[in-house]
Amino acid sequence: MKKNDVIAIFSQNMKLIRIKKEMTQEELSFKSGLHRNYISDTERGRRNISLKAAEKIAEGLEVDLKELFLAID
Amino acid sequence: MKKNDVIAIFSQNMKLIRIKKEMTQEELSFKSGLHRNYISDTERGRRNISLKAAEKIAEGLEVDLKELFLAID
Repeated sequence: MKKNDVIAIFSQNMKLIRIKKEMTQEELSFKSGLHRNYISDTERGRRNISLKAAEKIAEGLEVDLKELFLAID
Repeated sequence: MKKNDVIAIFSQNMKLIRIKKEMTQEELSFKSGLHRNYISDTERGRRNISLKAAEKIAEGLEVDLKELFLAID
């Protein structure tokens, strides 16, 4: 993965936070109002999502959106 | 503006940082590789841009992407 690749950073943070919060993709789908396949694809880094979709995911995870952009070592 | 509206936060941060760096929209367009109209529309909060486009803007402004998501008082 490119270290500064926004898709890779976002998708990894999203997955890590979801797992830390013991949330399933199904639950995140329900809380964010996004389709489960969309959640799954986004976690796999397969989508270049919009800012509004990113915000919905942050709301579903109950974190500040900026936390999803923090670089991972 | 809704305080937690990602588009409003992003567009305002983008404009503030560009002006602080004494950069014109034309220069930001050149540095980010995005069309000048796209830069202008995004600064006006008229576009729900993708994560990759947001990253290009951050690169053009020479800031960390997360700085563009910091809430403004």
